[in-house]
Amino acid sequence: MARAGRPSAALARGDIERTRMADSQDTALIVFTPSGRRGRFETGTPVLTAARQLGVDIDSVCGGRGLCGRCQCTIGEGRYAKHGIDSAADHVSAWSETETHYNARARRRPIKAGRRLSCQAQILDDVVVDIPADAQVHKQVVRKRAEARDIVLDPAVRLHYIEVEQPDMHKPTGDLERVYGALAAQWDLHELEDCDLYTIQWLQKALRDGDWKITVAVHMGKRITAVWPGFRDRAYGLAVDVGSTTIAAHLCDLQTGEVLVANGVMNPQIRFGEDLMSRVSYAMMNAGGAREMTDAVRGALNELIVETAAEAGIGTDEILNATFVGNPIMHHLLLGIDPTELGGAPFALATSAGLTLWASEMGIALHRDARVYVLPCIAGHVGADTAGVALSESPHLSEDTVLIVDVGTNAEILLGNKHRVLAASSPTGPAFEGAQISGGQRAANGAIERVRIDPQTLEPRYKVIGCELWSNQDGFAKAVRKVGVTGICGSGIIEALAEMYLAGVIAPDGTIDGALAARTERVQKDGRTWSYLLNAGEPEVRITQNDVRAIQLAKAALYAGARLLMDQLEIDTVDRIVLAGAFGSHIDVKYAMILGLIPDCDLAKVSSAGNAAGTGARIALLNKNARPEIERVVRQIEKIETAVEPAFQAHFVEAMGFPHSTAPYPRLRQSVALPEAKKPAPPEGGEQRTGRRRRARAAG
Amino acid sequence: MARAGRPSAALARGDIERTRMADSQDTALIVFTPSGRRGRFETGTPVLTAARQLGVDIDSVCGGRGLCGRCQCTIGEGRYAKHGIDSAADHVSAWSETETHYNARARRRPIKAGRRLSCQAQILDDVVVDIPADAQVHKQVVRKRAEARDIVLDPAVRLHYIEVEQPDMHKPTGDLERVYGALAAQWDLHELEDCDLYTIQWLQKALRDGDWKITVAVHMGKRITAVWPGFRDRAYGLAVDVGSTTIAAHLCDLQTGEVLVANGVMNPQIRFGEDLMSRVSYAMMNAGGAREMTDAVRGALNELIVETAAEAGIGTDEILNATFVGNPIMHHLLLGIDPTELGGAPFALATSAGLTLWASEMGIALHRDARVYVLPCIAGHVGADTAGVALSESPHLSEDTVLIVDVGTNAEILLGNKHRVLAASSPTGPAFEGAQISGGQRAANGAIERVRIDPQTLEPRYKVIGCELWSNQDGFAKAVRKVGVTGICGSGIIEALAEMYLAGVIAPDGTIDGALAARTERVQKDGRTWSYLLNAGEPEVRITQNDVRAIQLAKAALYAGARLLMDQLEIDTVDRIVLAGAFGSHIDVKYAMILGLIPDCDLAKVSSAGNAAGTGARIALLNKNARPEIERVVRQIEKIETAVEPAFQAHFVEAMGFPHSTAPYPRLRQSVALPEAKKPAPPEGGEQRTGRRRRARAAG
Repeated sequence: MARAGRPSAALARGDIERTRMADSQDTALIVFTPSGRRGRFETGTPVLTAARQLGVDIDSVCGGRGLCGRCQCTIGEGRYAKHGIDSAADHVSAWSETETHYNARARRRPIKAGRRLSCQAQILDDVVVDIPADAQVHKQVVRKRAEARDIVLDPAVRLHYIEVEQPDMHKPTGDLERVYGALAAQWDLHELEDCDLYTIQWLQKALRDGDWKITVAVHMGKRITAVWPGFRDRAYGLAVDVGSTTIAAHLCDLQTGEVLVANGVMNPQIRFGEDLMSRVSYAMMNAGGAREMTDAVRGALNELIVETAAEAGIGTDEILNATFVGNPIMHHLLLGIDPTELGGAPFALATSAGLTLWASEMGIALHRDARVYVLPCIAGHVGADTAGVALSESPHLSEDTVLIVDVGTNAEILLGNKHRVLAASSPTGPAFEGAQISGGQRAANGAIERVRIDPQTLEPRYKVIGCELWSNQDGFAKAVRKVGVTGICGSGIIEALAEMYLAGVIAPDGTIDGALAARTERVQKDGRTWSYLLNAGEPEVRITQNDVRAIQLAKAALYAGARLLMDQLEIDTVDRIVLAGAFGSHIDVKYAMILGLIPDCDLAKVSSAGNAAGTGARIALLNKNARPEIERVVRQIEKIETAVEPAFQAHFVEAMGFPHSTAPYPRLRQSVALPEAKKPAPPEGGEQRTGRRRRARAAG
Repeated sequence: MARAGRPSAALARGDIERTRMADSQDTALIVFTPSGRRGRFETGTPVLTAARQLGVDIDSVCGGRGLCGRCQCTIGEGRYAKHGIDSAADHVSAWSETETHYNARARRRPIKAGRRLSCQAQILDDVVVDIPADAQVHKQVVRKRAEARDIVLDPAVRLHYIEVEQPDMHKPTGDLERVYGALAAQWDLHELEDCDLYTIQWLQKALRDGDWKITVAVHMGKRITAVWPGFRDRAYGLAVDVGSTTIAAHLCDLQTGEVLVANGVMNPQIRFGEDLMSRVSYAMMNAGGAREMTDAVRGALNELIVETAAEAGIGTDEILNATFVGNPIMHHLLLGIDPTELGGAPFALATSAGLTLWASEMGIALHRDARVYVLPCIAGHVGADTAGVALSESPHLSEDTVLIVDVGTNAEILLGNKHRVLAASSPTGPAFEGAQISGGQRAANGAIERVRIDPQTLEPRYKVIGCELWSNQDGFAKAVRKVGVTGICGSGIIEALAEMYLAGVIAPDGTIDGALAARTERVQKDGRTWSYLLNAGEPEVRITQNDVRAIQLAKAALYAGARLLMDQLEIDTVDRIVLAGAFGSHIDVKYAMILGLIPDCDLAKVSSAGNAAGTGARIALLNKNARPEIERVVRQIEKIETAVEPAFQAHFVEAMGFPHSTAPYPRLRQSVALPEAKKPAPPEGGEQRTGRRRRARAAG
């Protein structure tokens, strides 16, 4: 069997030229698709060897020994006029015993119909060979959203199967040194620096158990970090988003990029404080408090890892790499750093760097020598989670100017394009998450999540999580009994307020119009203000004047932050808007804009990115080059501290109205009829325009 | 105060040229001794700044802030014709307040009489400045033996005092990143790659406790590994020789190179087996046996560290770096590697590389992030201890050909010169250590260590360890009562046998001459052979025929190993011989040569190196460049496996006689009269010569 070790660069250049030049009966032309690379090789050369010498991107873990089944290719049939080749299946050698043997026991990756192992098929005559996407090393991992960048698979940890020279008393090198030799000769890995001690401790047994054939995992092409006897092609990685509320993990196959299991668990730090600042306070007020919270989050994480691995049917020790994102306080607590300094100005991070650590240093139970990469933080309020968002949404690669907001307790905001990216954090508070709202609750079964109000009758209808029917549909009462109507979640509040505003129940300045009590019993006196009764059950769900004020404060903070960055870029509108985070993926972007959470924009250009922070962690897991990329991007991002920008306060005040006290929102008005302000605010700086006098409901 | 950060290389080149060119009243010439470096600087320039720009080797931990007292210099007084300078104390500025203040509280390092702090003294006029040896960074650490190479102080871990920029909301970098900035600006350290997590965890507190002035420890100029608030100049290192019998540690001050405490402890692995092979057997026969032995040696090591630190009055967490040597089996067990493979051919090492690890990876309790360096192994029988010997004795730098033998249970042998170095191990067995000898014991109180036999009367006299008097001196009986006469140690056996041989009690072939029983009661019938009664007390100490045979086997193995290497080099004599190890430093080299442990050589060229392996560990501790050096040397050393060399057996047999059955030992005979062989061996290959007919005792 030909040993198809990777040729050195010199070989690839020199020898090919020579074989290309020759044109006797003993050579044949091979053309690879889709790359188009072509070359002439001696007949009998394995297709894999030709591919490698020509630099064709083709996968292999076993190094061409017919063990891994990754180098599958399709031999072209017919006339390829473009290449001047009549190709046929018998222009390569017939199925080898190795292929038959491989296919007989292949469970995970049988040779697909019409395919060959390129390490086995030898070139006999001119041929066109297609390398399918799944056989490429740098596979594209396709993401669902059309506008999202695809992930090029190139993980930090790679497996390499090697056959190691046996020890010889006359050349008394260590076993490890012969492993280095094999990796250099068979995989062209010459920069191996060191080896984890645990691996050295097990190396001799692995070599002898595997009869001098082993698979090693190499981190960053530099350091051997695990070893197994024989052939092995299972390597997994974990991308983790440590949120203040939820810890979300994606278990990925590092060989395919596939997400095997997505899993989540509550962050048990909640018992030390619901929001971030109360956790920092806990650390400040209690000796050892930070350590308690560190232990809590790591404990939950380890349980999550055990569950996730079990669900995928793998061992936790098969997870060789993990990446982490989190806001600065979660980031610090995860790393065992006291977050006290993040509790007050100047909000100094212990470090803003991307960190490569051993999982064991962080007390995380993966493979004993698994490596962990923690994404960099951008600023004291803008953490590794936002770095993850930046990696996922890539404003630094965008031609048009994009505004990205990740809405949580704080809203992190990115604005920019390939020339310049800015970041800020706005103190929205937890109102968007249902906190500080009279009937508010987390998005869970029983929470009202959708609301419509008839502008004529002012009667509401709603949908609750866990029930498919709208409240005005037949059978709702029965259907909803299982979950009940327990409160209203963030997206429900946004819709309720927007619908109340569109129906005239709330004035553009946020006041609930008490005069409407004459028209509907829904509007009720509530002390010195008024409220709107959404559901009369037990518990009663109503929107109070305080609720409206809470949302106004939150959305004004969000808008003002975005506006501050727009000032820096000297722009008045953005080309597109991306809403990231769980809240961003649950709310209807139209209602968010009606309330003025985000600046005016073509509604078709507003999208939800889901957990973009987690996606960023996944990108950094699957593509090692994304790590220096995001570190570079983070260094270049211009950080704006909203707290010390004088303009922030002015922007904040002006953003209190619906959708805004001064900004005209012309694009929004093209698709939604906004109510006229009953008492127009006095013109200010000549920029003030009143809404058009239309009261018709928005389409849809 | 001028901030005397290290200038960049560009500054050093460019600016000096410019200032040298200028020759106005505002510049002055400075000449440094002993380096002879000279340059012209603007008046007011601190001497330290000038020194650095000129590349003068001068120490500083505080970076020129008058805190560390390391940059002391002496201002020349008088006419320096050679330099054309009239130098005087007032050619630099007067004592600064900083110097007065420093001296008032300096405990460890006051400014010596006539000296100045070069960071404080500013150049006012032409001046000659001497940098004393103790103020140089790359100090020479002088070793006692004249022929030993001095150690250039350049430890792997260095302390750097820095003043760090405070955080700024408008430039939200992490504290760590500003520490990197300070190290780059103030110490020219631009290659910092990463930082230990534990350091990051404590960094913020250290910065604030130290009011943004901290001292950091940097490993290999690349990685921050410890941090303390304020100024600190205490950093310690530990060099450890893990022997099968004894663990020896040297605690060193990394700033001065000084050995503060030398300490030792028994290796508790002895309870698993006295010699190396019995320990390997224990690992092979008992599941978890290797782990038990690893835990035992690490436990003893940790106790030794605590004791050693206490004796020096420091905390174990002030030890920032450690180096280790040991034979291959000790090396593997210390690292937690099962030594089973070393128990049989082909004697495969898990790794032969030099290893840089965290102390915590090895379970060693120093500073939490202390780094450990384990010297490389040469071959399966020739370990990191021999690498230490090679570093200490540097055959690879030797002009003449040197034979270095480290005698223990196995004898490790190095032979060579700057062109070529060979290594082998010879299976001497434990006879030299007193094992397998009838009255043998370790070198401890009560052991006979020196022996003389009167060639006329055949009466012995001896000295025991723990008693100053010879056995024939007045008052010996009383003086020896405290320790008793308990047995005979390795050096005593060598002397007893050599004296018996010189007195004719033992024939050159090793037979005890029973005919002498007629002349002396010391020679007694002992079954079918004879023995010599050395001490009639309780216990009786006698030299039996078996004892002689045991020593003959051991010394023949040692000689044969050396001879095998000499064959490879195609030489018949060596220029000098170094005996390393405890045994080598206790025996009288003359007696070793009389018995033929070592080949013939001018006795004046035979020396003892003491614990050269431990010294090698100390060199690697104090000079980081010694690490790649010994790795390179070890790769280049030619390894000879005695067990598979056919010539070994022949050499072994011929080496059984005293001093040798065939080699003539002419140089030895020049200073010692060897007895004639009573029955000359038959001539062999024409090389055989008989000893000269002299029986007079050797001088001294």
